Amino acid sequence: MNAFSDTTQNVMTQTAVTLEELIRQTGSRARVAARTLARAGSEAKNQALVAIARGLRANAEVVFEANRRDVERAIARGLTPAFIDRLTIEAKTLEAMAQGCLDIARLADPVGEIVGMHTLPNGMQLGRMRVPLGVLGMIYESRPNVTVDAAALAIKSGNAVLLRGGSEAFESNAVLGRIVRSALEEAGLPADCVQTAPTADRDFVGAMITAKGLIDVIIPRGGKSLIARLEAQATIPMIHHLDGICTTYVDKDADLEIALKVTDNAKTQRYSPCNATENLLVHSAVAEAFLPRIGRIFADKHVQMRCDERARRILQEVGIETRAADPADWGTEYNAPIIAIAVVDTFDEAVDFITRYGSGHTDAIMTENLSTARRFLREVDSSSVMVNTSTRLADGFEYGLGAEIGISTGKLHARGPVGLEGLTNLKYIVLGNGQIRI
Amino acid sequence: MNAFSDTTQNVMTQTAVTLEELIRQTGSRARVAARTLARAGSEAKNQALVAIARGLRANAEVVFEANRRDVERAIARGLTPAFIDRLTIEAKTLEAMAQGCLDIARLADPVGEIVGMHTLPNGMQLGRMRVPLGVLGMIYESRPNVTVDAAALAIKSGNAVLLRGGSEAFESNAVLGRIVRSALEEAGLPADCVQTAPTADRDFVGAMITAKGLIDVIIPRGGKSLIARLEAQATIPMIHHLDGICTTYVDKDADLEIALKVTDNAKTQRYSPCNATENLLVHSAVAEAFLPRIGRIFADKHVQMRCDERARRILQEVGIETRAADPADWGTEYNAPIIAIAVVDTFDEAVDFITRYGSGHTDAIMTENLSTARRFLREVDSSSVMVNTSTRLADGFEYGLGAEIGISTGKLHARGPVGLEGLTNLKYIVLGNGQIRI
Repeated sequence: MNAFSDTTQNVMTQTAVTLEELIRQTGSRARVAARTLARAGSEAKNQALVAIARGLRANAEVVFEANRRDVERAIARGLTPAFIDRLTIEAKTLEAMAQGCLDIARLADPVGEIVGMHTLPNGMQLGRMRVPLGVLGMIYESRPNVTVDAAALAIKSGNAVLLRGGSEAFESNAVLGRIVRSALEEAGLPADCVQTAPTADRDFVGAMITAKGLIDVIIPRGGKSLIARLEAQATIPMIHHLDGICTTYVDKDADLEIALKVTDNAKTQRYSPCNATENLLVHSAVAEAFLPRIGRIFADKHVQMRCDERARRILQEVGIETRAADPADWGTEYNAPIIAIAVVDTFDEAVDFITRYGSGHTDAIMTENLSTARRFLREVDSSSVMVNTSTRLADGFEYGLGAEIGISTGKLHARGPVGLEGLTNLKYIVLGNGQIRI
Repeated sequence: MNAFSDTTQNVMTQTAVTLEELIRQTGSRARVAARTLARAGSEAKNQALVAIARGLRANAEVVFEANRRDVERAIARGLTPAFIDRLTIEAKTLEAMAQGCLDIARLADPVGEIVGMHTLPNGMQLGRMRVPLGVLGMIYESRPNVTVDAAALAIKSGNAVLLRGGSEAFESNAVLGRIVRSALEEAGLPADCVQTAPTADRDFVGAMITAKGLIDVIIPRGGKSLIARLEAQATIPMIHHLDGICTTYVDKDADLEIALKVTDNAKTQRYSPCNATENLLVHSAVAEAFLPRIGRIFADKHVQMRCDERARRILQEVGIETRAADPADWGTEYNAPIIAIAVVDTFDEAVDFITRYGSGHTDAIMTENLSTARRFLREVDSSSVMVNTSTRLADGFEYGLGAEIGISTGKLHARGPVGLEGLTNLKYIVLGNGQIRI
C-alpha cells in the first residue's frame, strides 16, 4: 500500500463512458481545481513541489517497476533503441525530476505580481495583475519525465493541468501522476490540479484539442509531425514549437575570432536541439578569410557541409570536402552533423534568406557594426534574435527563466522560451473611489 | 476618376478562382506587405494615417454614394431599421473615422520598444523588443466604419490586415479600402498592407479562419452568435469578445453613496454596451439600506428588476415593483434596461456567483475594506476587476490606450481592452561578445 494509493483518479476504473464524456469529466474537475489553485498562496504551492520531490524519492522502486513494464512492452513491440532510451526512467532521471521540483519551488511566484500601476486623469488607478491561464492541456510523447516537469511548472504558475503522455509510457505516467496528486493533497491543494489522461486511447488527444471551455491552452511537446497534426485540428489555442531552422550570419564587419568560436558552438556543441544552427551565411567580403577556417573545424568534427557554388569553390580551393546544396537544404532542420552554407553579397540578402527559409525560432548575426546589429535586431522576426552569441543559448535556463515548458514559435501570447511568466497572463485591475462613466 | 482608382485590388476582376485560391493570393500579398510594414518607421505609418483622413474627407461623396447603394439594397431586402442605422455612413460617421486616424497617428509607436534589458551572468544582455503580430484577419458585421478604424490600428501597430466586413456593406467597404490603400501608397508603403475581402461570398469567412500560415490572428467583431460560430471552427488563434455578463457587488463595508452612484452608472449610463452591469449582488448586512435606494432609481428609469426572494421582499416592502428572477437570468447578457438582483450573505458567495455566472469580462466590488478589496482583485478572474468604479469604465479609451480594436475575453495573449500593444508581441533580443553554450 503506497502513500498515494487513495488519490488514484476514479475515472480509471470506469469503462462504459465515451471519450467526450471522459474529457468533460476530467476537464470539469480540472476547472474546479484550477480555481482553488489560482488563489493558493506561494507557500502551499511550494510545499506541494517539495512533497513531489520527496514522493519521487520515497517511491522510486514503484516508479521503476511501472516503467519496467512500459519498457518491456515497448521492446516487445520492436520500438527503436532511441525510443526505449527516452522511455526509460533511470535513477538519475528520477533524481533530475525531483531536483527540478525543488528548483521550481525556489523561483519567485509569478501569480499576483502587479505591473504598470498608474493614476488616470479621473483619479482611478489602473494596473495589471499576473494571473494563471486556467487549465493547461499538455500533450507529449515518450519521455515520462515531462509528466513531473510540466506538473511542477503548472502548480507553481497556478494552473491546473491535464497530462497526456505517450501511450507507451502509460503506466509510468500513471504512477508519476499519483505521486504528484498525493503531494498536492499533502499540501492541502486539490489533487485534481494535476490529472494524467484516464485512458491510453489515442483518440483522447483529439478530444483534448477541441475541448473548448474545458482546456484553456494546449501545450504540445514532440516531433514536428505530431505538432503539425495537432495544429491542423486544434480549435483551442496552442503554445507550441514547430521548426528550429536557425541561421548564423557572419557579416562583413564581423570579428572573425568571435564568429569562429560562436559558429562552431552554434553547430557542433550538440546536434539534436532545436536551437542548433542549421544554416550559415557568410558575407562575400569575409568569405575567403572565414570559410576555410570554419570549414576546417567542421571537417575535423565530421560535419557535412552542403554549400552554394561560391562557398563550395572557396572550401574546395583549400582542400575541404563539401557537397552541393540542394534548394531544399536551406529549409531543412537537420538535427544532425550537417550544415548548409551560402555566401551573400549584402545584409539585405541575409535577412531575406532568413525570412524565406528560417522558421522564426532563433537567428544570430556576427558583426561589430552597431547600425547593422540594430537593423538585424529590428528586421529579423524570430522569437530570439541575437548579436555575437550562439543560437544554442536560446533556452529558458540560459535566459535565466529558471525553468522552461518549451520554446514557442507562435506569434501570439508567448514567443521564444516559455517559463512561468508564459503560463500566466495579465488582467486589468482598477482601484477607484466612485469613478463613473460620463 | 478618383485618386485611388488605380489601387483597386486586382483580384476583384478575377472570376474563376476558388475561395482557397483567393485566400491564398490575398494572404500571400498580405504576408509580403507585412514584412515591409513591420520595418517601416513611425513617420511613414503616421503619414499614411494622415493621408487616410485627408482621403476620406476629399472623397466623401464617393463614399456616401457607395454606401447609399448598400443601404438601398438592405432596405429592399427588408433589413431592420437598427441594421440600416449601423450600415449608414453619415457625414459625422465619416468625420469620426477621419478623426480616429489622426488620433491614432498621434499615439506612440509600439513597434521597436525594448523592455526588460538586463545583463546575464555570462555577460550577454537579454531583453525583449515589441514587434507586430504579422497579418490580422478582421471579421465584422454591418458597420463600415470598422474598415477604417481597424486599418488605422493595423497600420500603426505594423500589421497587415485582411478586412472582411458584412456582405451588406460590400460596396462601402470596397471604397473605404481603396481610400486606405491609396493613402498607404502615398506614404510609400505597400497598398497590400490593407486589403478588403475580394468577394462578398459568405464562405470567404470560413476560408479566412482556417488559413494557417497566411493569417496570424483572427479578430472578430459582432454579435455573440457570429463569434461562437467562428470560435467553433477557427484553427487560427483569435482575439475575441464573447459575452459581457458583468456584476457589481455591494459589499457589507461599501460606502453606500459611492455604491449608489456607481451602480446606477454601471447599469443605466447606456444599456447596450458589453461592459454595462447585468447582475447586482448586495451583501445582506446592507441590503435593507441599499436596495430601496437603488431600486427607486431603477424604477424611475424604467429598469426592470429581476430579483431573488430576499431582494424582492425588501423592494416590495417599500412598494417597488419587481419580477422574480429565473435561474437563467443570472447568466444572461441583457443589453437592455433589465437588471438581475440577488442578496448574498458572504463575500465568498459573491465571488462564487461571479465565477459561476459571469463571463470573465468586467466585475466590480463596492467596499471600503482593504482586505476585502485585495481578495476581490485576486480572486475574481475577469479581464477587468474593479474596486469602487463603474464597470462601464472598462474600455480602451477610458483606460488611456488611445484606441481599441475590441475587448478580449480570452485567456491567452491580451485580456480586456486591446489597443496597439495587444496587436504586438515581444521577441527576445540578445547582445553579446562571443558568448557560447557550455
